[in-house]
Order: sequence, then C-alpha cells, then structure tokens
Amino acid sequence: MSTLSENLSKRINIAVAQSGGPTAAINSSLAGVFRAARDNPDIERIYGAVNGIEGVIGGNLVPLDSILTSESDIELLKKTPSTVLGSCRYKLAEYDPADSVTESEYMNIINTFEEYGIGAFFYIGGNDSMDTVMKLNRYIRAVGKDIKVIGVPKTIDNDLPCTDHTPGFGSAAKYVATTLQEIIRDSRVYSIQSITIVEIMGRNAGWLTASSSVLRANGEPAPHLIYLPESCPEGFDTEKFLEDVSRMMKRYRAVIIAVSEGIVPRDRDYVKLGADAFGHTDNSGVAKYLEKICRDKFGCKVRSVELNVMQRCGAHIASLTDIEEAEKIGAAAVHCAMDGESGKMMGFRRISSEPYRVEIIPFDVEMAANAEKFFPEKWITRDLCDVTMDAMNYFLPLIQGEVQTEYRNGIPVHFRLNQ
Amino acid sequence: MSTLSENLSKRINIAVAQSGGPTAAINSSLAGVFRAARDNPDIERIYGAVNGIEGVIGGNLVPLDSILTSESDIELLKKTPSTVLGSCRYKLAEYDPADSVTESEYMNIINTFEEYGIGAFFYIGGNDSMDTVMKLNRYIRAVGKDIKVIGVPKTIDNDLPCTDHTPGFGSAAKYVATTLQEIIRDSRVYSIQSITIVEIMGRNAGWLTASSSVLRANGEPAPHLIYLPESCPEGFDTEKFLEDVSRMMKRYRAVIIAVSEGIVPRDRDYVKLGADAFGHTDNSGVAKYLEKICRDKFGCKVRSVELNVMQRCGAHIASLTDIEEAEKIGAAAVHCAMDGESGKMMGFRRISSEPYRVEIIPFDVEMAANAEKFFPEKWITRDLCDVTMDAMNYFLPLIQGEVQTEYRNGIPVHFRLNQ
Repeated sequence: MSTLSENLSKRINIAVAQSGGPTAAINSSLAGVFRAARDNPDIERIYGAVNGIEGVIGGNLVPLDSILTSESDIELLKKTPSTVLGSCRYKLAEYDPADSVTESEYMNIINTFEEYGIGAFFYIGGNDSMDTVMKLNRYIRAVGKDIKVIGVPKTIDNDLPCTDHTPGFGSAAKYVATTLQEIIRDSRVYSIQSITIVEIMGRNAGWLTASSSVLRANGEPAPHLIYLPESCPEGFDTEKFLEDVSRMMKRYRAVIIAVSEGIVPRDRDYVKLGADAFGHTDNSGVAKYLEKICRDKFGCKVRSVELNVMQRCGAHIASLTDIEEAEKIGAAAVHCAMDGESGKMMGFRRISSEPYRVEIIPFDVEMAANAEKFFPEKWITRDLCDVTMDAMNYFLPLIQGEVQTEYRNGIPVHFRLNQ
Repeated sequence: MSTLSENLSKRINIAVAQSGGPTAAINSSLAGVFRAARDNPDIERIYGAVNGIEGVIGGNLVPLDSILTSESDIELLKKTPSTVLGSCRYKLAEYDPADSVTESEYMNIINTFEEYGIGAFFYIGGNDSMDTVMKLNRYIRAVGKDIKVIGVPKTIDNDLPCTDHTPGFGSAAKYVATTLQEIIRDSRVYSIQSITIVEIMGRNAGWLTASSSVLRANGEPAPHLIYLPESCPEGFDTEKFLEDVSRMMKRYRAVIIAVSEGIVPRDRDYVKLGADAFGHTDNSGVAKYLEKICRDKFGCKVRSVELNVMQRCGAHIASLTDIEEAEKIGAAAVHCAMDGESGKMMGFRRISSEPYRVEIIPFDVEMAANAEKFFPEKWITRDLCDVTMDAMNYFLPLIQGEVQTEYRNGIPVHFRLNQ
C-alpha cells in the first residue's frame, strides 16, 4: 500500500518542525501532521523539532506523541496561534562537499534523523523554509539516504508560488477585515474631516492589504484607497497619493486608507523620517510618514494605525476555512511522504470559487523555494489605488467561518508546550 | 406611579446622545435607553441627537423609533462598536446670564427640546460629558424648566468617580487581555532574547494597562512588568525601568512589558523623540521611546506595539458582562428620569466579586463631573512595576462572557444608521 513502508519493511518515526514568522494556522498544520501520522499504521513515533531546523541540527527533539495525549489537546493546539514548537530564521547553506562547515551541519541533521529513526521530515513554513526543504532533500538524495522531506506551506503574506493561497493568510485577512471595520466605525464618530491610514503587513507582496477589499461584500465603501507594493514598482508617488486623498476627501468625511508596509515613497525625506528616526529596522512605519505629509498638506485630523504582529497571531478571530485547510494540508503531507514522495511542497489548487472547492496536490519544492508570488497586475485598478471585484471574489472564500474559541476566566485558552 | 408623568399629566418625548471617545459598549447603552423608553407608557417619541450636544444645539435630531424598528436591529446595535449617533468633544460654557453667547447656546438647547417636546435628555459619555450633564441641569433648574437630564457613564479609561467601573472598560480589558496573550505567543517563537513593549491607552489613569494582569488567572506570568501613570507620579524613571528589564531578562527569554500611554519619562531626550519626531500630538508613542532605550542598552531584539484605537472599538471580542451592564445602566437612566430625578449620573455599586453582583444607583453628577478616579496606590506593588492580586480580582468579573457576533460574508455585521 505505502511505497515507503514496503521499502523499509518496518515502521518509521517522523519529525515535524515549524519555521518563519508566526501565523494563526501553523499549529493547525502541526495538528494535521500529528493526527495523520498517529493514525498511520506504518508510523511509530512522532517527534517535534524545537525551533525549526535549528532543533534538528542541535538534536533538540521532543516526543509529540507523549505531549499531545488527548483529542482536546489537539483541538486546543489547532486554535493556538504562533508556533508551539518554536521557530527560526535559519538558512541552510547549499551543500558543498568541499566545505567542511556545511558538511558537518548536514551531517548533524542526518545524525539526528538516524538517532531518532526518522524516515520522514515535515517542515511547516514560508519561502525560506521551502529553501531548507529543497536543500535538505537534495543532500539526502545525494548521499543516498531514504528519508523523505516534505514542505507544508504557511505565511500570512500569501506569496508562495504554485499554491492558490497559503495557510495562515485567510485568518490574517479575517483579522484585517474585522479590525479595519472597527477602525472605520471608530473614525466616523466626529463631525470633522479626518484621514485614517492603516498599515498592513506585506513587504514585497500586497495580498493582505488588498484583502481589505472584502468589506465591500457587505456594502462598506472603505477602505477608499488601497496601495500595494505591486501598484508602485517604481516607488510610491506621494504627489499622486495626496491627489487621491484630496479627491476622496470631497466624497467622504472620514477617509480610510489601507497601505502595505512595503510601499517605498520616492521622496528624499522618507528614509530619514521613516526608517531612522522611528528606529525601525525594517520598512514598517510608512503609515506614520504618510500621516505626517497628509497633516502638512490638509491640516485636518490624521492618524495612522499599525496592525503590527496582531494581524498574524489573531487566533481569536481566525478563519475556520483557513484553520481546517491548514490541518488538512498537514495531513496530506504525511500521506504524500508515505506514498514515497520527497522534495515536494503541498499546495492548494482552486477548483471553483462559488461554491468554493480546492484540492491539495504536491508541487516540486524547487518551483516554490526562494520565489515570491506577487499580487496580479490585472487585479489592480487602472488608477493604481484600488483592487478589482475579481480580487475580492478571490479573497472572500478564504475568510469564511469562525473557530469556536474556548475561554477560561474570560480569556481564550492556548495550548502551551512548557507548562 | 411616575412622578414625572403625574406632573406633566401627559406623555413626553425623550432625547438621547453619545459623546466622547468610542467604546464597544456605548451603543449598548443607547439600546438600553431605547428599549426602556419604548416600553414606558409615559414616553411617546424617542429621538437621537447627532454628534452629542452639538446635535441638540443645532437641532439635529433623528427619530430613533422610526429607525430601530425590530428587535434584531436593536440586538445588532448592541454589538456595534463606536457611536451610531456620532460623537463630539464639545464643552458647554458655564451658564452666565451676562454673556450673550453662552446664553444663546443654552437657549438653542432649550428651543430644540421644546420643539421636539423633550421631557428627558440622556447623555452617554465620560468625564467631559458629565460636565455637560451638570451644567445643563443647572441651567434648566435655574430657568425653571421641567426637563430631566441624566448621565450614562462610558469610558474605556474606567476613571469616572462614584461608579465601581464604567461601561466600555470591561470590553477594552478583554480586548487587551486577548490581544496581549496573542502577542506573548508571537514573541516566544525564536530562541533569542527579546523584549516586547505594549502601549495601552490611559493618559492619566492606568486601569486598562493594569487589567493586563488578568492573564495570571490562567497561569500566564506575563506581562512581567506593568507601568501606570499612578506608579510614577513624579515622572517615569527610565534608569529604574532598565534595571527592572535587566532583572526580568535573567528570568525570561521573551520579556513582555505593559505600559500606559500616559507615563512620562523624566529623560530630557524624551520630548524630542517621543513627541516631535513621531508627529504625535498627544503623548502616545512612549513605547517607541522605551523600545529605543532598551535596544541601545541591551542590543537584543526589541519591539513595541501600540494597541491604538483597536482596544476601544474591539466589539468582536467584547465582554458579555460589559455589553449587558451597559444596556442595563441605559435602561436604569430612563427609570431614574421617569421617577423624577435629574442631574444624576447612573453608576454601579459592587455588592460582591465572588459571586459577582452589582446594583445600579444614581449619583449626584456634581460629584462625577470633571473628576478622575485613579488606580489605587494600594494595588500597586512595592517595586512600582506590577499590580496586586486584589487588582486582578477586581478586574476579572468585568471581562467574563462572550457576545455572539453575527457574521455575513465572514465579517462581523455592524448596525449602520445611514445605509
């Protein structure tokens, strides 16, 4: 039945790890890997590597099957944001037999796998993590070991190639829509003219910012302006921006603007104010800069809001579709490895949007690693400050459904590994 | 039965308005006023003044009984954050018969009331709004009109005197606890030392920041440090702060710090960096400043998060206790006026915390207007960087229960007056 188990003629152990920035769904994929492995007669033990590939290199594995001992634990894990196994931003060097440092790192990985009897390794992560899957798979094939390596996608940025969308994105989009709508309510209370600029994550890809357009499905015209990195590849034109805002101020008392953190104003002043003075090490802070130039230009009430890390870990308002898909894609990764595959990233193929149907299929991880999928040009309106209805219709299925949060003392309960 | 109606011997109309900063519960108090008025046989029409007292002065009233025509509308209104009638920050001048400007403003108010046959006016708001209730009541008594004026408290700051707590605070506290816990999960993923500073609203009163201590009821040690304006009346000592952080870094890999926006560092550098460069017009931005001095001192990963307006309008994670109490106190205001009272602010008296029981009683608005209730000194720990268990036990009942949010297209549904 299972190619892998036929080859081995004995039961294997597996390891799973999480990598990259937190999301609300990454633990749900862990739950998916765990349940599928637990229910597979060819799998014996299930280990979790602490802090991603760092835990594999350092031999820091925990026995997940001794930790997740009840269905209620697993259900709680699914609803817990961020990574219970910890994460890392570690980039494996390309394997080079002539370089002893690289060689020893890969050998440490193999030693850990062999010590724990690992026959398949699952890596839940984004672009960088798929690079690790690719390199590790190449090395293992090169040295002729029989260990399968499969990537499980996750990122709120939705910028992984091949897959229709990424687990974690739908929950982030639901957080953004819910929170932005509350900010809209908040911004409209006074009788005075105002401008509110909301900065949304996305350094190179504007998917999450563009997803704020879903509010229109409920008749909400705001956000009145939407700016993505993809709509200003030559740099963000602040003169045009001020004209856009001025136009909207004639129509709306409270103008609401959604901007990707990754847009880079062309102004010479920007670097000084946006990066240095604010102490930001990345380019977040652009909303604060736009706040300043709007106040200088229009003299009305202007404020900026950063959705910050809340947008990626807002499990209490997670999308049920996202959480369930994240679990399913984790399980599919296990099935894929047990079918003998390796060097794959699992992904979604959208069969239809209405009714929403997807299938999960494996993609060659070489196609997914180190590449980014950008927001399509055809979904940016001609005036470069909005997205189309087609974009909205792409986003809507991904934010449907609500997770039943468990509360204790009025506070959501989280699963914690070390308690 | 009702003194007021006996005096009038006919049915009266009433008006209600909302004022000050948005909360998640202020529309629930509006629903409470509306339902109690609708069900009172001595009340004929129910009007809402647009943008608080500005709407009364300008004669801008809307017929609420023609707008809220179904129970489902009212239930939706209760769950909608911010103020559907709009708000204002308008401060009435003290009535002075010798000053024609003041005189005409009060006369405009009376004209509106008389034009619409208003026998009772309900003002939902915070400290400043209670000032309006007080002055308006004084004027009406001085000119011998029979119009009752009652204040309904609301503020996320929880800083109104007399009442045990204020509607809107419990929901803000539940948002802070839920979000902070998610930020804590997010901050612990990497194996490196980090510091996360979360800035919470409260310019002079630290109630909301202190409420983050509720996480301990579920065994969460963070936030490891809590700083309130009340714990540093002489100014915030950044040297001591850095020592506190250093101590916590020895115990925790990811140190979490909750600070009130209102704390004012004594450093001479602060004004320059905290206020001017960031373009903040108020004193928000202190977390950004503390982020900078922590990074300079410790050189580790440091980040700051502002919960911004989200904490006051987070209806999707509102406290059911808060939303229900807000409705009840609105209804109690109507009963109070119809019993012939005026110049009162309704308030809660806590009978017991376990089980939680409160009663609603009227307080003389003169005692509540223009005064602030600060976080008690006895609930600040001796090291000035935490709060006591007694404080936690005060907060806990206020965040209990969850509101059943209605969703359409995966997004919470809000009631909108102008659709």
